[in-house]
Amino acid sequence: MSAEHPRIVALAGGVGGAKLAHGLALTGLDERLSIVVNTADDFELLGLHISPDLDTVLYTLSGVANPDTGWGIKGDTFNTLDAIKRYGGPSWFWLGDRDFATHIVRTERLKLGQSISEVTGGLARALGINAAILPMCDEPVATMVNTPDGRLDFQDYFVQRQHQSHVIGVEFEGISNASIPAAVGDALASAEAVILCPSNPIVSIGPILSVPGMRDQLNGTTAPVVAVSPIIGGQALKGPADRMLETLGHEVSAVGVAEIYRDFLNGIVIDEQDRDLAPRIEALGIKTLVTGTIMRSDDDRQRLAEETLDFAGRLR
Amino acid sequence: MSAEHPRIVALAGGVGGAKLAHGLALTGLDERLSIVVNTADDFELLGLHISPDLDTVLYTLSGVANPDTGWGIKGDTFNTLDAIKRYGGPSWFWLGDRDFATHIVRTERLKLGQSISEVTGGLARALGINAAILPMCDEPVATMVNTPDGRLDFQDYFVQRQHQSHVIGVEFEGISNASIPAAVGDALASAEAVILCPSNPIVSIGPILSVPGMRDQLNGTTAPVVAVSPIIGGQALKGPADRMLETLGHEVSAVGVAEIYRDFLNGIVIDEQDRDLAPRIEALGIKTLVTGTIMRSDDDRQRLAEETLDFAGRLR
Repeated sequence: MSAEHPRIVALAGGVGGAKLAHGLALTGLDERLSIVVNTADDFELLGLHISPDLDTVLYTLSGVANPDTGWGIKGDTFNTLDAIKRYGGPSWFWLGDRDFATHIVRTERLKLGQSISEVTGGLARALGINAAILPMCDEPVATMVNTPDGRLDFQDYFVQRQHQSHVIGVEFEGISNASIPAAVGDALASAEAVILCPSNPIVSIGPILSVPGMRDQLNGTTAPVVAVSPIIGGQALKGPADRMLETLGHEVSAVGVAEIYRDFLNGIVIDEQDRDLAPRIEALGIKTLVTGTIMRSDDDRQRLAEETLDFAGRLR
Repeated sequence: MSAEHPRIVALAGGVGGAKLAHGLALTGLDERLSIVVNTADDFELLGLHISPDLDTVLYTLSGVANPDTGWGIKGDTFNTLDAIKRYGGPSWFWLGDRDFATHIVRTERLKLGQSISEVTGGLARALGINAAILPMCDEPVATMVNTPDGRLDFQDYFVQRQHQSHVIGVEFEGISNASIPAAVGDALASAEAVILCPSNPIVSIGPILSVPGMRDQLNGTTAPVVAVSPIIGGQALKGPADRMLETLGHEVSAVGVAEIYRDFLNGIVIDEQDRDLAPRIEALGIKTLVTGTIMRSDDDRQRLAEETLDFAGRLR
């Protein structure tokens, strides 16, 4: 690694991804860090535009995230939602009072003509975040999940049905009309390393990789591309990634994750529990770093980020 | 008065009007009471449709109004607004967390195609209100205030400048396209008394009377039309009605109020402090009832409502 901090691009989705992105920010990268975030989970509720993954990254990096849930703001109150319930409004999606502020401001600014990239930049600056938080695209994209119960909106599958349905297919509606925002393209073009955070490969990283041109840009970059496996000991720490990989025909392991990213991946960080998998991944032409990947504290996040950056630096 | 409760229509605007409307509800009129409410103060903030006068009536009649301010919900918290301030959003209009719920639900339902009448009916039912809360019209109308500082939006004049500007003219933008909603027309047609609540005659009752056909309907009704003066001892209890009457060339007294309503008014309730004004009002052909009109408690509201209904009954 150079004496100066390298330019880093991280791709992130939900809670695990936001934790590693936070770790990268804690290494002092500041504005040399760009975090490209999944927006295919975005949806409208009560007329408000909600961006769950952007919010998780914004709240985590600004230190206000609720550590117990991974979503929402710590210490938030629920008086608005309680009053909405009284009016017969929907209550299946938990929205705190401070969280509502984000959705209200975002919705208003989108309505006034700002792009989701511009809105997110404004929110991040207001929260004191130095890293660039970059939505994967400015066009609307919607993850749809095919299940034996039918085709479901992502939030219907994920929150209302608590991701219990078997996923037999995933589509990103609108993705063919999406394009890589200039800031994302520039960040990737000047990146000295690209980090795929330990987010769900199918529905968190998957939509980002599906933005037309994105996979080509990762294939073409001279910067090392390194993933951190979200599957540890055959399980996802959180969420349905393990079951989703299985029902979609992937191996439920770091090997399965490496295979999904195989065409552009130079290295993958796997957990000590999965040490035995390293030879199989190396056989794919992908380098491995074996370390502790479970992030329980801010120190864990920073340490994993530093090890991942060092690993990427050695692959340059 | 008949043994059964009469059908009553009340016209109301802000806090004073809502108090008497509440008093009328407390007499047990229930669904025989229709309250026609000013919507010309409605405005958009943060992309949300806010209806200050409708909310004051909804909150007052459902018993959740903040008794200290007259607006907002008692015991409400301000976490959403605090977070909005952090994002650089507007903070000049105080909105509590439970209050936000009303604006969010109203805005969503309007967006889904409901009229403001339909939305208001739904909110009132959810809050357990038996009286019909009827917006003066379903079309957007905006009160504009002409002042030496220029032409101001009503909320700019009223909240941001705390109604300190001299009012030299008032316009209700969009009023010529407004029409009396069917429910308001039906209520007036079957009314056994019409009560003009002690609201600002210019900017609260004024817009209601300016809906095309409204003044004609009040002129044509066989039901007694009775006002309660919002001016007591030459002053408004709350708000700028006194200064506004003065700068617009009206007498700042119950006589001035009676003159504004003279073409259709049969009687006016004036405060004991204004007993001496009664002969001048009677000389206009308008009957007077002199009583205590200051409403400090729910009992005051109900007692004034009962006296006003009895007075109207004697004018039938």
